[in-house]
Amino acid sequence: MIILGVDPGTRATGFAVIQHENNRSIALDFGTIKPSPKDPLEKKYYFIFTSLDQLIIKYQPKFVSVETQFVHKNVQSAIKLGMARGACLIAAAKNNISVHEYAPCLVKKAVVGKGHATKLQVQKMVQILLNLDKQKKLDEDASDALALAICHAHAFHMNTNFQNILRR
Amino acid sequence: MIILGVDPGTRATGFAVIQHENNRSIALDFGTIKPSPKDPLEKKYYFIFTSLDQLIIKYQPKFVSVETQFVHKNVQSAIKLGMARGACLIAAAKNNISVHEYAPCLVKKAVVGKGHATKLQVQKMVQILLNLDKQKKLDEDASDALALAICHAHAFHMNTNFQNILRR
Repeated sequence: MIILGVDPGTRATGFAVIQHENNRSIALDFGTIKPSPKDPLEKKYYFIFTSLDQLIIKYQPKFVSVETQFVHKNVQSAIKLGMARGACLIAAAKNNISVHEYAPCLVKKAVVGKGHATKLQVQKMVQILLNLDKQKKLDEDASDALALAICHAHAFHMNTNFQNILRR
Repeated sequence: MIILGVDPGTRATGFAVIQHENNRSIALDFGTIKPSPKDPLEKKYYFIFTSLDQLIIKYQPKFVSVETQFVHKNVQSAIKLGMARGACLIAAAKNNISVHEYAPCLVKKAVVGKGHATKLQVQKMVQILLNLDKQKKLDEDASDALALAICHAHAFHMNTNFQNILRR
C-alpha cells in the first residue's frame, strides 16, 4: 500500500511517498516543492499541482493524507494556505485518489505517541520509524508530510485489524 | 478582447465571459458552477477546476479577473474560499492566462459608480451595461463575476488610453 503525505504551503509544500506492508513502512521519496518566488500566484499553485500530479502518476499511491487545518495566523494566510491545499486536492481528484484528513495532534500521537510533541521530536521519530539517515537534517515540511503518511498507515492498519476482529 | 470573470466559492462559483470591443461589452456566457453537495471536497474543487478549464478552452479569454479577498467570516471559511480560488488560479495558469485582482470596492465603483453599492445595485447595473433581460433574475454569483469582468475591461481601457496619452 502506497501513501502520499502532503503538507501544503505556497512557499514550500512538503511531500512524502511511503510504502506500508506487513506493519512496516519504508520511504520511497520525500522532499519539498518550492515554486519560484518571482512567479505570480497562479503559476505557483499550478507548479504545486503539476508536481503532485507527476508524483501521483509515478508512484500510484492509494491514498493522499493531509492535515486538517484548524487555526492560522490570519485570514490572509488562511486563504493562501487554502489555495495550496486546493492544488493538492485537485491533483488527488484528477487521479481518482481519496483524500484523508488528520488533525495535527493525531499525527503527532501516531508518530511520537504524544499529541503535543515538538517539531524536532516528530523529525527524530520519523527518522527512526523509516530508518532514514540520522546525520542528514530532515526538512521540516518533508518531515510533516512523512508523519502524515505514517499516520494514515497506522489509521488504516488499525481500521483493518478492527474490521478483522469484527469479522471473527 | 475576451475576459473571464470568476467569483470563486465551494458551493457556487460564479463565472462570466464578456467580449469588450470599442468601449462596449457584451456577455458571451455567464452562470454558476455548482459541485454536487454529496461529493467529497477534492471532487468539488476538481469539478470547479475542470469547468473553468473547459470555459477557457472554449472562449480563449485573454484575462481572468478575480476579487481581491480581504476579509471573511472565519479562518475555516477562508481556507475553503482559498481552495476554490486555487482551482480558478490553476485553471488560468494551465492555459497561460494572466490573473488580475480587483478589490470589491473598485469593482462596485467601476460598475455602479459607488464603492459601497449594494448587491442589488450591482445586479441592476450589470443588466443595463450588458443589455441583459431585466425580467430574469440574475444569480448573485454570476452577477459578481460579470461585474469583475466589466471592471477589468474598464481598467484595461483606462490603462490603454493612459498609455496613448503618454505616447503623444
